[in-house]
Amino acid sequence: MTEVKHMKWWGWGDDGIAFEHRDKPAFAPFVRKAIGLDVTAPAATARPFDALDVPESHLDPALRDELAGIVGAEHVHTDTMSRVVHTFGKSIRDLLRVRSGTLERTPDVVVYPGDEDEVQRLVDAAVAANAVVIPFGGGTNISGSLEPATDEERGVVSLDLGRLNQVLDVDEDSGLARIQAGAQGPDLERQLGEHGWTLGHFPDSFAHSTLGGWVATRSSGMQSDKYGDIADIVRGFRLVRPGGVVTIRPIPSTSTGPSVREMVVGSEGRLGVITEATVHVHRIPEVREIFGYLFPSWEAGLAAMRDIAESDASPSVTRVSDARETAFSFATRTASKKKITSLGSQALMALLRRRGWDLDQVCLSFIGYEGSASHVKYEKKLVKRIVGKHGGIGLGRGPGELYDQKKFDTPYIRDFLLDRGAAADVSETAAPWSKLRQLYEHTVAAAHSAYDDLGVQGWIMCHLSHSYHSGACLYFTFAFVHGEEPLKQYDHVKSAIQQAFIDAGGTLSHHHAVGVEHAPWLAQDISPEGVALMRGLFESADPRSNFNPDKIISPS
Amino acid sequence: MTEVKHMKWWGWGDDGIAFEHRDKPAFAPFVRKAIGLDVTAPAATARPFDALDVPESHLDPALRDELAGIVGAEHVHTDTMSRVVHTFGKSIRDLLRVRSGTLERTPDVVVYPGDEDEVQRLVDAAVAANAVVIPFGGGTNISGSLEPATDEERGVVSLDLGRLNQVLDVDEDSGLARIQAGAQGPDLERQLGEHGWTLGHFPDSFAHSTLGGWVATRSSGMQSDKYGDIADIVRGFRLVRPGGVVTIRPIPSTSTGPSVREMVVGSEGRLGVITEATVHVHRIPEVREIFGYLFPSWEAGLAAMRDIAESDASPSVTRVSDARETAFSFATRTASKKKITSLGSQALMALLRRRGWDLDQVCLSFIGYEGSASHVKYEKKLVKRIVGKHGGIGLGRGPGELYDQKKFDTPYIRDFLLDRGAAADVSETAAPWSKLRQLYEHTVAAAHSAYDDLGVQGWIMCHLSHSYHSGACLYFTFAFVHGEEPLKQYDHVKSAIQQAFIDAGGTLSHHHAVGVEHAPWLAQDISPEGVALMRGLFESADPRSNFNPDKIISPS
Repeated sequence: MTEVKHMKWWGWGDDGIAFEHRDKPAFAPFVRKAIGLDVTAPAATARPFDALDVPESHLDPALRDELAGIVGAEHVHTDTMSRVVHTFGKSIRDLLRVRSGTLERTPDVVVYPGDEDEVQRLVDAAVAANAVVIPFGGGTNISGSLEPATDEERGVVSLDLGRLNQVLDVDEDSGLARIQAGAQGPDLERQLGEHGWTLGHFPDSFAHSTLGGWVATRSSGMQSDKYGDIADIVRGFRLVRPGGVVTIRPIPSTSTGPSVREMVVGSEGRLGVITEATVHVHRIPEVREIFGYLFPSWEAGLAAMRDIAESDASPSVTRVSDARETAFSFATRTASKKKITSLGSQALMALLRRRGWDLDQVCLSFIGYEGSASHVKYEKKLVKRIVGKHGGIGLGRGPGELYDQKKFDTPYIRDFLLDRGAAADVSETAAPWSKLRQLYEHTVAAAHSAYDDLGVQGWIMCHLSHSYHSGACLYFTFAFVHGEEPLKQYDHVKSAIQQAFIDAGGTLSHHHAVGVEHAPWLAQDISPEGVALMRGLFESADPRSNFNPDKIISPS
Repeated sequence: MTEVKHMKWWGWGDDGIAFEHRDKPAFAPFVRKAIGLDVTAPAATARPFDALDVPESHLDPALRDELAGIVGAEHVHTDTMSRVVHTFGKSIRDLLRVRSGTLERTPDVVVYPGDEDEVQRLVDAAVAANAVVIPFGGGTNISGSLEPATDEERGVVSLDLGRLNQVLDVDEDSGLARIQAGAQGPDLERQLGEHGWTLGHFPDSFAHSTLGGWVATRSSGMQSDKYGDIADIVRGFRLVRPGGVVTIRPIPSTSTGPSVREMVVGSEGRLGVITEATVHVHRIPEVREIFGYLFPSWEAGLAAMRDIAESDASPSVTRVSDARETAFSFATRTASKKKITSLGSQALMALLRRRGWDLDQVCLSFIGYEGSASHVKYEKKLVKRIVGKHGGIGLGRGPGELYDQKKFDTPYIRDFLLDRGAAADVSETAAPWSKLRQLYEHTVAAAHSAYDDLGVQGWIMCHLSHSYHSGACLYFTFAFVHGEEPLKQYDHVKSAIQQAFIDAGGTLSHHHAVGVEHAPWLAQDISPEGVALMRGLFESADPRSNFNPDKIISPS
């Protein structure tokens, strides 16, 4: 048996961990008001795994023997659970489909190579047999980057990198670590941390996603303002292709023509299998703090984030929620603390009211600081001045600590709601600073218009995060009580939001990849001629479409 | 007549500007000692332009008429001077060849489009006629990215972007400017400066090179530590291809699969013609200062730069010269100033001697600071501590101002030496911090071994510049008195240096592109499988090799 941990087949995260509303008194009233759902009513009973209708594995026995000869029979899995777990990522579409009980297509086999040489032999064997290879990391993707095409007639091999989970080497002089692609966030941070280092890459999926997955999908972590997106962090890698390995050495910057490094980042398995990457690592800073702030309006919060990005300060996190997401945050706090700065406390609200704030417009913000104690002090001072200029106030360290503890829990709420008949998911984009306000208004309006089409009471909230010199990411969360055709309803809302992004000058996704879910907007984003260049790359690199076909570019 | 300014046909820069040694008393003795050349002896008389042996233009008259119909006959040039100026860049190989008097192949025609629509029609006409299109910016390239293949039998069109030189738009909220590709450095900085903005991109070629050229060759400017390389700076662009335009919108960061943006950056004209780019611009900072420092050794200087890169400080320039380049800098100063910190002054040397420094090992460093006055003060303090830790001393603002004034003059020295029988050029690389010392030793040894093979007294000196989290650029300048076969001799030395880069873990070039000169090392740098991916991109995008063929990837 292969010792690689996977998430629940029917939802996010580890078995036994779930979102709990009973210790959060404001949550149930909030959800009732937002989408008309009574979360105190009993949840639907989950379908047992045995009741799923899963197609058989149709693996050519000769190929199966060959795969077993490479990795050992114990690392070749065709059982139903293995195949179901490797069919999807964790988008709401994925959860709806797997929970519906009917899977149209699964991989025919899951293989777990133990080293790069085995990956090479697996790839060569699969391509020789004209099978499809889908590399699998943590399975957290939410854009449909993992699913086999339902009409795929060839054998489908899910190549799970989970056994390749080691930090191989740390170059302390250069701040570079060579890490195997299958290492999950906590694994690699633990191994790096033993030597005083950190990667600093903490996406929401951190607890389950892998380095190889981050690279293959252009991931971004919460502290990207300081540590960069994964595209900045990854300097070199090894990519197994039929017959050989693309080796990109870790060079800080180079002028070697069109960037092969940047062709492989975001390639979602279409160019081969990433087995290891050499990435920036940093000494764990003396101080790591996240401070909370409040702004009197969304406009003030956005303007402050922009000014911080332009300033001499360079915090690790810049984040501000709109008024709706702020209300949601207030509604998910567990205990009301006595401190005046406690989120949503009556004392704090009274203070703001005395200052003349409209409490329905209050926006919660988090700014992260990392570095030496004196540097953090210096940056906090610079930020304080900017926050003040925009009418905001500081809440100190308390709310930030809360945020830091809760940040990886959010995905569990989705399963909680789904158990009760509500579909919730996220959609995010990035755009220049000058376009953010209009993009926001446009997207909220588009979502509500889509809800109206469906005749449902829907919710949409947003935060800004991941600031850059010229713009930032806007991250929307939306939810509604679905009817009998949840997938169709979801697609309608999601499509409206995606189209609003593009129409308002945003990109199809800042850090969740293209997969099949965002592929319809690719040509609008990078132009049809841009897609043509990319298509030429894919077709020349993979003429028989053996590598994760139909992702990123929809079949024409 | 087209009003686009070009450099001297036989050398660098503007007519009437030349390097002068007579006001630099230490220069002649220095050169005599370094490479055995007497620069006070009379220089060779330059070959008159009329004495060049230049092949005729063989342009299909039908194509010529078509081109004239698009841009107007006055913007279609087939005269000898236009074709000679557009044949090469300004590498030493280029200068040796053009000065030799014999040109094997020139473009058959130079066309100057006035807008993007004309570029589109020119590209479509040239491709329909199966002609070759070579986009031309400032003509400063030193890697052979511009020359037509000598055996090219098709018509060759040099497409000069010089008339497209306008800043079209500044998005002040986002710090983004849309600028035409043919704008030269001083033109665009002047237009931006009128509104209080700067691009902050100042390569050595700044006075003559263009935005489109920077993007097409992955350029890097002296202040890249703060402003980024051009690959970071350029967020969007328009690239004319046969039948249509690749439009990449300015998105701060995106996960749209393999990066088409990063395929076009560094593509050297092989994927099409860049007509405009949207780039990061910054408000001109309150303070811009460059400070000088001295270190007791190269090792100390390197270690200090590394520590600065890891620190909370983020200066705009980090640069340290080895002892040989430091001696060269001392030898090119014009007047001996009285101040004790004046470069190479006897008083300064006496001070260092009293401190126990070996004066033959002294290394000169420049650190640049930009931002608010208080921020610059803060960063200088952080840097001072690091410099002190490595035994260095500060020289204040004087030497830095000198550097700032002289920085664009260096290329003129090459012509001065070439007039006197010495070949001088540069070769630069980047590598992780942990490899820099060995790469340096290895490269210096390789150059001297190559000089020994040739039986000449050669010189090589180096500085570190362009620091990153994980490494930096090492920039070598080398020179020797050449014999009867200067090109062959140059190739021998240059090849030894390039191979040393690769063998020691460096890249073929940090910011001078691949062209034809660095192409032999591409497979060693990004692996044969990496080259195969890139070749697939080129061949699918340009199946008949109409766009600047044979650059980056050598013909197989």
